[in-house]
Amino acid sequence: MGHGGGGVMSAELVENLFLPAFGGAPDTGLGDSAVLGIGGARLAFSTDSYVVRPLFFPGGCIGDLAVNGTVNDLAMSGATAAYLSCAVILEEGVETSVVGRVAQAMGEAARAAGVEIVTGDTKVVESGHGDGIYINTAGIGLVPPGVDIGPHRARPGDVVIVSGGIGLHGVAIMSMREGLEFGVEVASDSAPLGGLVRDLLAAAPGVHALRDPTRGGLAASVNEIAAASGTGVVLREGDIPVPPEVANACSVLGLDPLYVANEGKLVAFVARADAEAALAALRAHPLGADAAVIGECVAEHPGMVVARTPFGGTRVVDLPIGEQLPRIC
Amino acid sequence: MGHGGGGVMSAELVENLFLPAFGGAPDTGLGDSAVLGIGGARLAFSTDSYVVRPLFFPGGCIGDLAVNGTVNDLAMSGATAAYLSCAVILEEGVETSVVGRVAQAMGEAARAAGVEIVTGDTKVVESGHGDGIYINTAGIGLVPPGVDIGPHRARPGDVVIVSGGIGLHGVAIMSMREGLEFGVEVASDSAPLGGLVRDLLAAAPGVHALRDPTRGGLAASVNEIAAASGTGVVLREGDIPVPPEVANACSVLGLDPLYVANEGKLVAFVARADAEAALAALRAHPLGADAAVIGECVAEHPGMVVARTPFGGTRVVDLPIGEQLPRIC
Repeated sequence: MGHGGGGVMSAELVENLFLPAFGGAPDTGLGDSAVLGIGGARLAFSTDSYVVRPLFFPGGCIGDLAVNGTVNDLAMSGATAAYLSCAVILEEGVETSVVGRVAQAMGEAARAAGVEIVTGDTKVVESGHGDGIYINTAGIGLVPPGVDIGPHRARPGDVVIVSGGIGLHGVAIMSMREGLEFGVEVASDSAPLGGLVRDLLAAAPGVHALRDPTRGGLAASVNEIAAASGTGVVLREGDIPVPPEVANACSVLGLDPLYVANEGKLVAFVARADAEAALAALRAHPLGADAAVIGECVAEHPGMVVARTPFGGTRVVDLPIGEQLPRIC
Repeated sequence: MGHGGGGVMSAELVENLFLPAFGGAPDTGLGDSAVLGIGGARLAFSTDSYVVRPLFFPGGCIGDLAVNGTVNDLAMSGATAAYLSCAVILEEGVETSVVGRVAQAMGEAARAAGVEIVTGDTKVVESGHGDGIYINTAGIGLVPPGVDIGPHRARPGDVVIVSGGIGLHGVAIMSMREGLEFGVEVASDSAPLGGLVRDLLAAAPGVHALRDPTRGGLAASVNEIAAASGTGVVLREGDIPVPPEVANACSVLGLDPLYVANEGKLVAFVARADAEAALAALRAHPLGADAAVIGECVAEHPGMVVARTPFGGTRVVDLPIGEQLPRIC
């Protein structure tokens, strides 16, 4: 089960099996989406399959997740999502009303994100070979001229900013699954980030790298950018916004919030000169109201991420090993 | 299980649940791929999930099928496939060597088709919620200027041409699954059709509609074009190329070859003036050597497909109802 968790085993699987078979990775590393030239246009292209369990949870369902997840992957290249595909694998016996609710949620999420679902596919597998409904979305979006954002572009001196409180999606799923209550209901932060990114880029052309910290959480995203760019990263743990209900749930469940999935947050690596403008632009948007500077890039320990604890200590923040929370998205 | 077979139930599912939720179908009907304007370019965009069982079969495996199937969907819009995404859902316990062989087959098929796999995703589900490996591919390709091919464009007078003998993929899968032998091993016709379509369009600008008859076979493809264009179609059953091993297997299995899946064939609706040039171009290509004219479009019985039998009778060729061969692709 460790393969597919967004951590070390998943990276190894991709690197060892798929990339060599496909002819290797692009020189610039694997972003959340590929940026391609075609017919004179510069496009971002991305795909994700969604196998989240349960299908419905506070704050969303597999349907809006499948739209927002791919819209956000495109946004992390600076692209405005334009078109999505939607392919569903239905398990024999799934109720038509469930499929209808999921389809409805996808349609609403697409309208909210300003993206059109233009092509699709339906497959049905026997009971015991699926889990109600799995959804794949792929998306294409236009990268505006002059925008060049990628995990390889982070550099020493960059400021690390997160757009809000972390861990909400993962905790929402876990508490549903475990039947846990944490005083207040924790809702997923599932949301489309295209508008937030547009505002951010308009205010701060010095954005070097963007990532939406889904599977593997903030720790995985920051590690991927550190590895792709060869820069060191120092996070200030006390500055990372962790909502009290997430902190509470994580202490009960024995989880580190840095590794818990988000579905409506981004982490930005921004040139120091643009950091203040970037922070202000994020905070001016409803989806970035709690944005915070959480660290910086350094020339020391290239490719490694460390966190300064509130008590003055320093710990290494590794890529997650294996699957902390299976089937979170 | 009837949903997802490419026939009536599947069309109903898409029409009743997904299309209204997504905001309706484009006016020109649903082709195998959507044709979109973005950044000044005209792109085709398509997706399919592959859940074929067994994973490996004579003539191919789920890996090359996942590449060729999406390349062919793009080709049916007249587009040259440029980029693919690849998202896999692995079932816990699937052997790494199996995943490796599938990845290798995908890479080889992509190189053969001249397409690049540029972005991907891996999810893992628990044993009992998948079946070894499911693959989704989405693809984008450029539609050359002046090319306008779609199921709505067929019209009375058009000639119907199929690019070769039908039913090989479906019979290959069925004989594996049932452990049947038909004297000779029947191999899937899985192949990329981009080059064949390019040659066809260069020779015959009067190509109005193209379809690769996968799930639901030739009958489903011709019905979809008849319905989208509102033209009647008369097929001459005796002129439809059915390889002897397919005819033999179908008679044993009680199947009608017109409804059996293909993965390396196309059906073309071509203006009468261009029909001879189209046939010659197809026959000049290795993948179209057995191309044949099999019927024509008529003003009578709009939207309906009939077949003249070799004995002088006429029968209605309906859309397949339900799933004749589940999990064929």
